[in-house]
Amino acid sequence: MGNTFGKLFKITTFGESHGVALGVILEGCPAGLPIDEEKIRLEMQRRKPGQSKITTQRKEEDEIEVLSGVFEGKSTGTPIGIVIRNADQKSKDYSHIADKFRPSHADYTYFEKYGIRDYRGGGRSSARETAARVAAGAIAKQLLDHYGINLQAFVTQVGELKLEKPYQEMNLASAEDNIIRCPDPEMADKMIQLIDSVRLDRDTIGGVVTCVIQNTPAGIGEPVFDRLHAELGKAMLSINAVKGFEYGSGFEGVKMRGSDHNDTFVKEGDHIKTATNHSGGIQGGISNGEDIYFRVAFKPVATIMKDQDSVNESGESVTVSGKGRHDPCVVPRAVPIVEAMAALVIADYILLAKSNKL
Amino acid sequence: MGNTFGKLFKITTFGESHGVALGVILEGCPAGLPIDEEKIRLEMQRRKPGQSKITTQRKEEDEIEVLSGVFEGKSTGTPIGIVIRNADQKSKDYSHIADKFRPSHADYTYFEKYGIRDYRGGGRSSARETAARVAAGAIAKQLLDHYGINLQAFVTQVGELKLEKPYQEMNLASAEDNIIRCPDPEMADKMIQLIDSVRLDRDTIGGVVTCVIQNTPAGIGEPVFDRLHAELGKAMLSINAVKGFEYGSGFEGVKMRGSDHNDTFVKEGDHIKTATNHSGGIQGGISNGEDIYFRVAFKPVATIMKDQDSVNESGESVTVSGKGRHDPCVVPRAVPIVEAMAALVIADYILLAKSNKL
Amino acid sequence: MGNTFGKLFKITTFGESHGVALGVILEGCPAGLPIDEEKIRLEMQRRKPGQSKITTQRKEEDEIEVLSGVFEGKSTGTPIGIVIRNADQKSKDYSHIADKFRPSHADYTYFEKYGIRDYRGGGRSSARETAARVAAGAIAKQLLDHYGINLQAFVTQVGELKLEKPYQEMNLASAEDNIIRCPDPEMADKMIQLIDSVRLDRDTIGGVVTCVIQNTPAGIGEPVFDRLHAELGKAMLSINAVKGFEYGSGFEGVKMRGSDHNDTFVKEGDHIKTATNHSGGIQGGISNGEDIYFRVAFKPVATIMKDQDSVNESGESVTVSGKGRHDPCVVPRAVPIVEAMAALVIADYILLAKSNKL
Amino acid sequence: MGNTFGKLFKITTFGESHGVALGVILEGCPAGLPIDEEKIRLEMQRRKPGQSKITTQRKEEDEIEVLSGVFEGKSTGTPIGIVIRNADQKSKDYSHIADKFRPSHADYTYFEKYGIRDYRGGGRSSARETAARVAAGAIAKQLLDHYGINLQAFVTQVGELKLEKPYQEMNLASAEDNIIRCPDPEMADKMIQLIDSVRLDRDTIGGVVTCVIQNTPAGIGEPVFDRLHAELGKAMLSINAVKGFEYGSGFEGVKMRGSDHNDTFVKEGDHIKTATNHSGGIQGGISNGEDIYFRVAFKPVATIMKDQDSVNESGESVTVSGKGRHDPCVVPRAVPIVEAMAALVIADYILLAKSNKL
Repeated sequence: MGNTFGKLFKITTFGESHGVALGVILEGCPAGLPIDEEKIRLEMQRRKPGQSKITTQRKEEDEIEVLSGVFEGKSTGTPIGIVIRNADQKSKDYSHIADKFRPSHADYTYFEKYGIRDYRGGGRSSARETAARVAAGAIAKQLLDHYGINLQAFVTQVGELKLEKPYQEMNLASAEDNIIRCPDPEMADKMIQLIDSVRLDRDTIGGVVTCVIQNTPAGIGEPVFDRLHAELGKAMLSINAVKGFEYGSGFEGVKMRGSDHNDTFVKEGDHIKTATNHSGGIQGGISNGEDIYFRVAFKPVATIMKDQDSVNESGESVTVSGKGRHDPCVVPRAVPIVEAMAALVIADYILLAKSNKL
Repeated sequence: MGNTFGKLFKITTFGESHGVALGVILEGCPAGLPIDEEKIRLEMQRRKPGQSKITTQRKEEDEIEVLSGVFEGKSTGTPIGIVIRNADQKSKDYSHIADKFRPSHADYTYFEKYGIRDYRGGGRSSARETAARVAAGAIAKQLLDHYGINLQAFVTQVGELKLEKPYQEMNLASAEDNIIRCPDPEMADKMIQLIDSVRLDRDTIGGVVTCVIQNTPAGIGEPVFDRLHAELGKAMLSINAVKGFEYGSGFEGVKMRGSDHNDTFVKEGDHIKTATNHSGGIQGGISNGEDIYFRVAFKPVATIMKDQDSVNESGESVTVSGKGRHDPCVVPRAVPIVEAMAALVIADYILLAKSNKL
Repeated sequence: MGNTFGKLFKITTFGESHGVALGVILEGCPAGLPIDEEKIRLEMQRRKPGQSKITTQRKEEDEIEVLSGVFEGKSTGTPIGIVIRNADQKSKDYSHIADKFRPSHADYTYFEKYGIRDYRGGGRSSARETAARVAAGAIAKQLLDHYGINLQAFVTQVGELKLEKPYQEMNLASAEDNIIRCPDPEMADKMIQLIDSVRLDRDTIGGVVTCVIQNTPAGIGEPVFDRLHAELGKAMLSINAVKGFEYGSGFEGVKMRGSDHNDTFVKEGDHIKTATNHSGGIQGGISNGEDIYFRVAFKPVATIMKDQDSVNESGESVTVSGKGRHDPCVVPRAVPIVEAMAALVIADYILLAKSNKL
Repeated sequence: MGNTFGKLFKITTFGESHGVALGVILEGCPAGLPIDEEKIRLEMQRRKPGQSKITTQRKEEDEIEVLSGVFEGKSTGTPIGIVIRNADQKSKDYSHIADKFRPSHADYTYFEKYGIRDYRGGGRSSARETAARVAAGAIAKQLLDHYGINLQAFVTQVGELKLEKPYQEMNLASAEDNIIRCPDPEMADKMIQLIDSVRLDRDTIGGVVTCVIQNTPAGIGEPVFDRLHAELGKAMLSINAVKGFEYGSGFEGVKMRGSDHNDTFVKEGDHIKTATNHSGGIQGGISNGEDIYFRVAFKPVATIMKDQDSVNESGESVTVSGKGRHDPCVVPRAVPIVEAMAALVIADYILLAKSNKL
């Protein structure tokens, strides 16, 4: 259980951090969609390790191989199988922790769940698994392109540094111009400096990724349990290191009065719009045509370069020493992952909506 | 799509706010569990309208009728069908908004999705649907009792009033002693006064419900997509008016360093524990045996007693006038709903975990 | 597990033979479909006990109550809840077998599975459960009507009496003119006589129901695992007493050569047709636009009016004596059940097909 | 939709006949199961083309590569990814039929469904896809071994040649001693001769595979819709060229009286047994501990070496000429596929049953 996501546009992933390969099967992609493998590679580049000084230095080219489902440049409607081989899997880096439980990692819980442990780099629990999601998400994005929907994620917080400027006042695409992926250049610089200093401290720090989805048609969502924002929330919470999700007014909205919070409807030409958008583009779990936006909280990465107290499988006290190659802050590389998962949800729900009317 | 929740311990609900009845089918309840109908009724009482001066005055006794799946006081392993008839469905209360889209309600989005509209009290989009969840959740709670797991939700914020005291320092059960369901009596009074003043303003206000789950065994969770907290998050985000979810350190954890945030393992007698619990009892999507806790943000109720601008189905400008019977703040009645959904998730995942090992 | 059928157009049923009520939730019915409750009642009449001298004499009016999902005579797109109350549940009829395992019933296997037993008329394992399916199937039929698809089941075998005439040479609708539901009046008479003589022997006998579905558009089916005939097969095999399923040429086709069996394509006006139809309207798991037809084998009813050897829960040898009210042959009442399940499959797959193309 | 099979022990497959590779993800294999890759290879050899004079002469070694989910020779509980590369994919063999619809193939229906066509060897609709099922099924068999369950399929009919001897009177394992896989050596010789003569006629012929599953514990099955035999039936009907499924007494049982058909219970030592086994080991959709057995009908292979009339994508009359490399009769190679699918069903249902009791 748990390795499949989606209902009609659906992915199933496999693979461990230091195994032979990762991979994904994407089912339900409608036939006839032009599939540009170059665009998949581009997304892989955005996620791959070693892309800048503020990310892990593990070297993975993350080359994808499309094994099925595409013929003469188009989707055939059959499952698309993609494999990504692991190259730089230095398993011996992990021999020193083979029987130790690293604090705030999944070592202990996987051991409790399965009674067995793949200690090589966290095995299946490693964020390396998200490479497979990004590959599939890159196809979801191409489907959204076809429907005119676009989405953009970007970093809005690192530690205490929080970007308060509304997203409407920035050029979101410019987030890709800096290594932290923040659309405000000044804030970007501060964030990079902060991460750099944290890295020199042999420590890590948390952050927030915001995502905006534009041009989703009204009427997308599957209440009562599969509300659009509930599925987006689950998608985000399924990403490694995520601790929270909020959309629209979110936790801040709690403080407001209904009379301020309500988004009144107005007519704009032929279109019905809302005057404000505290709803975050979703009402009753269904899109209303306005921008969908949400924020995702990432904790500080658990692997730090400092020694920590812990216990081993026998329950003895041990020291886990700081080794290996890891990210001081996960958010720059999390941006394409957030986009991939969001694209997968929207693509799935677009297809689901086709069956709502006669 | 969207009316089923869970994988093995699974509910499917039906019913509209002002239809004949609501109901639920609960599948997958293991055979032989003593089912106490009185406990179901008790939970229904905690959720029912009209229970205090700070809730809606709609009168519903919310009497349940168990139609199947229980024989001689025990679950038989077959589906448990429950029906709750609507009594006080004053549909004419809604005739004045039959073709108007109420701001920040689901009127417009349901109309866009289905091309048809059940205008009577929001139809399926009404929070009245959660009555069916609470009935099923009351059985989930009895299953958790059997496994020694207990859970408690309570109100920790109304508007700007936020309870900062750690949950460990309060008697959580005492939350039931006041009408707002806050375990701090002083704060409870303030919250009640605030809601009362908002009500007199003919307005509404948001709030936060916190939930603590204790004694979940380690090893429960289905990564990578069905991480335990991802499913809890989805469950909460599927409740009406919810705008955000965070667990453990949540959005605050973003500001921390890894060296402070990591929960080091310690030995306590025969047990492996963590010294702190920023992880919120879940690591890598699997329970570690510590307390699971999370916070759920509820927006101010959309129905206010003031006039608001809007448009109707023909796109004409109209005024939606404030009428009907509604809650000035949803959190006191949301407490049992949060518990019900949390209980359903944990029950389901307990059953799922049975298949992990040989 | 196991009480839900379908993917988008989906039913979940509950209820025992001698419990309070049976019921069904039908999800995924597109909004705007006119729902004629009278047509549901008609199907219930076709299935109900006591309808003729060759069926069980249990008295059940099988009155349905639609609780949700229909507003002003049309489906709203939300779940349709239906309840059917049990009236004539003479549980005391079953006290004599409370701890005995009736031969070829599900008493023993349910006891082994659940460790508990609802002995009243077989509980959930009784064919009475199919009443809920017929109610939902009656709505599926109305959806198929909307798409111009029609389907008809009828009896083609009772014991050794087998109707060899091709279905194209009979007026299928005339099957409803006699109590056995066979479209050949002469054969119908023989079948009725046979069942009557079996009944006087205090015995039971098996039979075959054939079903023909016409005007299904080409392109319906979800290979590789959810081939259209695989889902039809599962649907039929899920009906009580079914022992086999074949479609198109079926088991007889085994004897043929490819050169005889292949259905060559021909042009007929603007349409592509096949010259023969050994494929039964399905190729590679997808409809080709020709008639879909299949046969379903029903075993002799397990409850006979003769004494039989058996054991009880303690493993002691006992005699199960023939009592109660049961069908001497299940096929006349199975006809509407076969139709209901077939209609549910086709309706579901029509909706699924909407997502195949861009 | 349609490329996933199973609920807890679950496979998802991808790949086309003449694409880069086939593959499968197997989810839900409990952790700690020793995985013998050699046993997987052995099953692949049983299914592979070119294994004898009565199978297609396509050359595929069907080498598997296990990419994940196995560590130090044991399953880890995470998904097992397996890839099988295509070697001998002579796509040019198919250029002559690129726009023609081969009779009784899936060319026309895939084109109608997807509006696009992968004409290379039938693409996804080719039985080559079953290689992925056999690889996963080989792991399912190892899980069944662990639980002491064994299963054996064998050929019981080719054309009119039908083996009437009861399976209990033969050494089923000896089926592997001849190229047709029939446990009666005399009948095996006749069947081989028949297929050989059909092949020389440039024609094809159908057949039946029987499967026996022994030592399944009582209590396995998920009524009402997911009855054990319904899932087995669907599994079999999902295999290419299958036209029918029957279990226990099957279509012959129709002719019997209840008093003859019923399997009376008897005590044998500590065990409850049935005196006969017309039920085929399943009652009410749940295993009763007796042998489960069923028969699967395969039509004659659609590809024949004779010219046939047909139409092309433009609706013009064309001749499809007999070329390529194909099986004159599918049943010898179908034996391991039937076993694989049966093993997958039983493995899945064994895991499902773990959640039935407290």
